[in-house]
Amino acid sequence: MGRHLCRLDGYPEIKVVLRRERDPSRVAVVSGGGCGHEPAHAGFVGEGMLDAAVCGSIFASPGVDAILAGILAVTGEAGCLLVIKSYTGDRLNFALAAEQARGMGLAVETVVVGDDTALPDARYPRGLAGTVLVQKVAGHAARSGASLAEVARQARDAAKQLASIGLSLTDCCAYDPHGTTRLADDEGELGLGIHGEPGARRINVAGADVLMQQAADTLETALPLSGGARYALLLNMLGAVPPIEQTLLLESFSRTTLAQKVDLVIGPAPMMTALDMNGFSLTLLALTNELRVALESPVEPRAWPGTACFAEPDVRPLPAMPETFPYPPSSQPQLEALIRVGAETLIANADSLNKLDAQIGDGDAGSTFAEAAREILAALPRLPLAVPKELCTTLGAVLARHAGGSSGVLLSIMLSAAGRSDKPWGQALVEGLDAMRRHGGANPGDRTMVDALVPALDAFAKGGSLGDAAGAARKGADATRSMGEARAGRASYVPGERLADVPDPGAEAIARMLEAMARSISQI
Amino acid sequence: MGRHLCRLDGYPEIKVVLRRERDPSRVAVVSGGGCGHEPAHAGFVGEGMLDAAVCGSIFASPGVDAILAGILAVTGEAGCLLVIKSYTGDRLNFALAAEQARGMGLAVETVVVGDDTALPDARYPRGLAGTVLVQKVAGHAARSGASLAEVARQARDAAKQLASIGLSLTDCCAYDPHGTTRLADDEGELGLGIHGEPGARRINVAGADVLMQQAADTLETALPLSGGARYALLLNMLGAVPPIEQTLLLESFSRTTLAQKVDLVIGPAPMMTALDMNGFSLTLLALTNELRVALESPVEPRAWPGTACFAEPDVRPLPAMPETFPYPPSSQPQLEALIRVGAETLIANADSLNKLDAQIGDGDAGSTFAEAAREILAALPRLPLAVPKELCTTLGAVLARHAGGSSGVLLSIMLSAAGRSDKPWGQALVEGLDAMRRHGGANPGDRTMVDALVPALDAFAKGGSLGDAAGAARKGADATRSMGEARAGRASYVPGERLADVPDPGAEAIARMLEAMARSISQI
Repeated sequence: MGRHLCRLDGYPEIKVVLRRERDPSRVAVVSGGGCGHEPAHAGFVGEGMLDAAVCGSIFASPGVDAILAGILAVTGEAGCLLVIKSYTGDRLNFALAAEQARGMGLAVETVVVGDDTALPDARYPRGLAGTVLVQKVAGHAARSGASLAEVARQARDAAKQLASIGLSLTDCCAYDPHGTTRLADDEGELGLGIHGEPGARRINVAGADVLMQQAADTLETALPLSGGARYALLLNMLGAVPPIEQTLLLESFSRTTLAQKVDLVIGPAPMMTALDMNGFSLTLLALTNELRVALESPVEPRAWPGTACFAEPDVRPLPAMPETFPYPPSSQPQLEALIRVGAETLIANADSLNKLDAQIGDGDAGSTFAEAAREILAALPRLPLAVPKELCTTLGAVLARHAGGSSGVLLSIMLSAAGRSDKPWGQALVEGLDAMRRHGGANPGDRTMVDALVPALDAFAKGGSLGDAAGAARKGADATRSMGEARAGRASYVPGERLADVPDPGAEAIARMLEAMARSISQI
Repeated sequence: MGRHLCRLDGYPEIKVVLRRERDPSRVAVVSGGGCGHEPAHAGFVGEGMLDAAVCGSIFASPGVDAILAGILAVTGEAGCLLVIKSYTGDRLNFALAAEQARGMGLAVETVVVGDDTALPDARYPRGLAGTVLVQKVAGHAARSGASLAEVARQARDAAKQLASIGLSLTDCCAYDPHGTTRLADDEGELGLGIHGEPGARRINVAGADVLMQQAADTLETALPLSGGARYALLLNMLGAVPPIEQTLLLESFSRTTLAQKVDLVIGPAPMMTALDMNGFSLTLLALTNELRVALESPVEPRAWPGTACFAEPDVRPLPAMPETFPYPPSSQPQLEALIRVGAETLIANADSLNKLDAQIGDGDAGSTFAEAAREILAALPRLPLAVPKELCTTLGAVLARHAGGSSGVLLSIMLSAAGRSDKPWGQALVEGLDAMRRHGGANPGDRTMVDALVPALDAFAKGGSLGDAAGAARKGADATRSMGEARAGRASYVPGERLADVPDPGAEAIARMLEAMARSISQI
C-alpha cells in the first residue's frame, strides 16, 4: 500500500482505501466496485483523484455498509460525489448508500458512468474504463476548490462525452482450474464488458493493425460528438497484455483515421482490467478546454499514466561516427600478401569449418570467419599496411562495422585494443588478446580460439617466427580435441561426451590460417 | 514517447533513445540490449537513471555502431558508464563500442551485471532484472555529480550485491503462431533467463504461496551476504501477469521468511520482461546506506515504481455507522399485524416464487423476498410502528443491512427515500418508488415488480383502500404474463418467447403479499 494511503478498520467485510491526509474543505470524491479491475479503483486514490475507494469481492459490488463507511470517512461540510460504474449492483448499492448518507445530513451527489457502446439498445450502458476519466475530472475539480454542484456538473459533463469499446483475444478468468473458454484459438471478441460476459460480436484473430482498425471503426460510429470534435484517447489494457504489445497497440491505433481526431493520449496502461483478459479497450472523451485542463493536471496516484500526444518524436542528428579508414593507406607488400593468404584460407575452409561446427554448435563458424575475411580482402587497398598500430586499429574497425557473430566481435576487440597499445607488434597483440579474453571470458583449456591464439601470440611476442606461431597454434588447436566439457564459447552448451575428438572450429580456423601464412613465407 | 525523450536519427539500424536535455557536466549513464524486455531499457531513460538506451531487435544485442552512436551522443568531459546486462552479445558489443569510444579519446567505464543465481556453475551468470537496480544506483551517483570512477565504483558495488531468480508458468513468445510450448499445463519453470531459454528446473504448478516459497528458498541459498544483512527486493513481472496477480505475488512474498530480511520493496511491476512470459522474478540487493539512498531517490522515468516497505498499513477506525434502529419502538397493533401477514406470506411463497423464477431467471427470487421478510419479522419488536416516517426509514435500514439481491436493495432505496419525504404516507411511498425506478431503471411494462408497485401505490396515494391497492397489484402482476421481452431486471437476459405466460416473480410477490394483507383486514 502506498505511503499516502490508509484503510478503514473492518476488513474483510469493509474494504475501504483512503487518503492518509486530505483537505476537509474540499469536496470528497469516492468511487469503487468489485475487485478484478485493478488498478481501478484503489490505485486511483490520492491527491487529485479519489479520496476513497470502496472495494467489493471479485466482480461483486461492495455492500451498502462498506460504501456508507467510505462516504462517512471522507465527507465533510463540502459534501461528496460518488462516481458509479454502471453495473446493476454498483448502481443500486451506491445509490442506497447515498440515500442513507443523505438521511444522516450529508450532501451527496452521484454520477453514473455508462461509456460502453457495444450494446446500442441497452437502457443502462455498462461503465467501463471511461469511469477512470470521470474520476480524474471530478478529482481535479474537487482539488481546485469547486462546490459539490460544480464538481458533479463537471463529472456529469465528462460522463456524457464518453464512448468505449473493448476487444480481447481471450475471455477472462484462468482462475477456472480447467481453463475452459468459449473462444476457439483463432477467435476473439469485440464489444466486451469487464466481468467476463460474452462480447457483442465474435471476430477472427488477426494482426494488431487489423484488430485495432475494427475496434476503432466500431467506436467511431458511436462517438458522442461528430464533425470537428477533438478527443482524448484512453488506451486501456484488460489484464494480461505484455508491455511490448501495449506499445504495439498504441502504434496501431496511431495509424487509424480515428487517431487524427485525438489530441491527448492516456496510456497504453492497465487502468480498468478484467482479471487476466488478453485484450484492450478504447475510450474516447470529447474534449472541452475544461476537460483538457482536468486531464492534463498531474496527480498523486502512480497508476494514472499522465497524458501524451501523437506528435512525431524529437529526432537528433547522429553524432559523427569514427571513420573506418581514418589513416592514409600505406604499402607493405609482404604483409599484404600474408593477409591475402590468410583471408583466402579462411574463405576456402568455410565449408569444412562449418561441418566441424555442426558437430558441436550451430554450424556457422566457417561462414562467420569467411565473411570477416571477405571484408578484410575488400578493405585491403585502403589499409595503412606500413604502420602496425594504424593497421590494427583499422582492421578492428572493419570487423566492428561488418563482421557477424561473436568471433568477429572478439577479434575486433583484440585488434582495437592492440591498436591502442604503445608496445611493439607482438606485445600489443598479446595486450589485445587479454582484452578479448576479459570480455569473452575464455581461458586456455576452454575449447575456444583462445587455445590457438594464446600459444601463437606467445611465440610471436617472444621473437619467434610466423612458422613458430603457426606450429604453436596447431598444437593448441589439436589439444582442443581432447578437452572435456567447454567452459565458454559455442561448445559450452554441449555435453562433454559429444565433443570427443572434435577440435574447436575457432581454434582450428586460427591454426589453418597461420599455417597457410607461414607456408607462403617459406615458399618465397 | 515521453516528452522528456528524443531519439537519434538512423532508425531502424540505430535505435537510440536519449534524454532531450541533460547536464553535460555529469557522467553519462548508458545501457541497452535487445527488445522484448520493456520497459527495460528505453523506459528507464530520464533524469536520475539513464541518459541513453541503445535498443536491438527482439532478444538481439544492438550492433556496435548503434552503441557507439549512443555513447557519443551523450558523453562529455565527465565520461560515460555503460551498464551491461551479461548476455554474450551484449557483453561483447558493448565492450567493443567502449574500446572504440576510448580510441576516440572518451573516458568510458563498464559494469557487467550478472545477477542470475539459477546456474551456479556459470562463469558469466546472466544479467536479469537486477540490471535495472544498477542503472538506478549509477543514475543516482551521476546526478549527484560523482566522478566517473566513483559512479563506476558504486555501480560495481551494487552489481556484486545482487541475486535474482525467475519463475514462470509459461515459456515466452506466443508470437509462434502455433503456440508450441515445452511445458505441460501443470508445469512451470524455476531459474529462468529472459530470452526464452529453458529454466534450470521444471516445477509443478501450485498456488502463489507455494510457488513464491520455492523461488524464495532457492534465492535464499544464493544470497550475496548472509547473517544480518538487510535487502531491497525487486519483484519484477516477466510480461503477462495481470495487476491483481502482481499484488497477490507480493502478498505471498511477504509471508516468506526471506521477507523478514527485506527493508525496501520495489514493485511489483514489469521492469525487465521476457515478451509475454507469465511469471515473475525476485531480485535481492544487499543494502548499504549508500545503496539505500540511491534506490530511494525519486527519478523521472515513470517505469521506475519507487520504493515501499512491508509495514502494516495505517488503519483508521470505522466511522460511526447509522444505527439500524435510531428511533424508540412504538406500537400500532393493526399495522404490526399487517406486516406480520405480509412477511409470512412471502416466506410461505418462497418455493412457488422460486419455481416461477427458475423459468426466466436464476431461481432465487422467492428466497430473496423470504430472507427480507424474515429480517423484518425479527425486527418487528424494535420498529417505530406508530410513526410512518420513522417506520419507513427503519425498514429501509433493516433491508440495507441484511437483504441480499437487487430486490432487497431496491425496496430499501424506496423505503429510505420515502422516510426522508415530508409528504403523507401514500405520497411519500410514491416518491420512494420514483427513487427506486430512477436507480433501478425499470418502467411499467418492463416485467419487474414495478408493474405491481406502481398501480398499487397509485391506488393508495389516491386514497384507495388496501384492497384497492391489492387489486391493482394483482392486475399489474397478471399483465406481466403477456409482456414481451423484458427491458430491465432479472428477465432482461431471456428471449421473449421463453417468457410467454410466466408472470414476473417480483410483481407476483408484491401482489400476493398485498392480497394476503387485504384479506387479513377484511377478516377482522
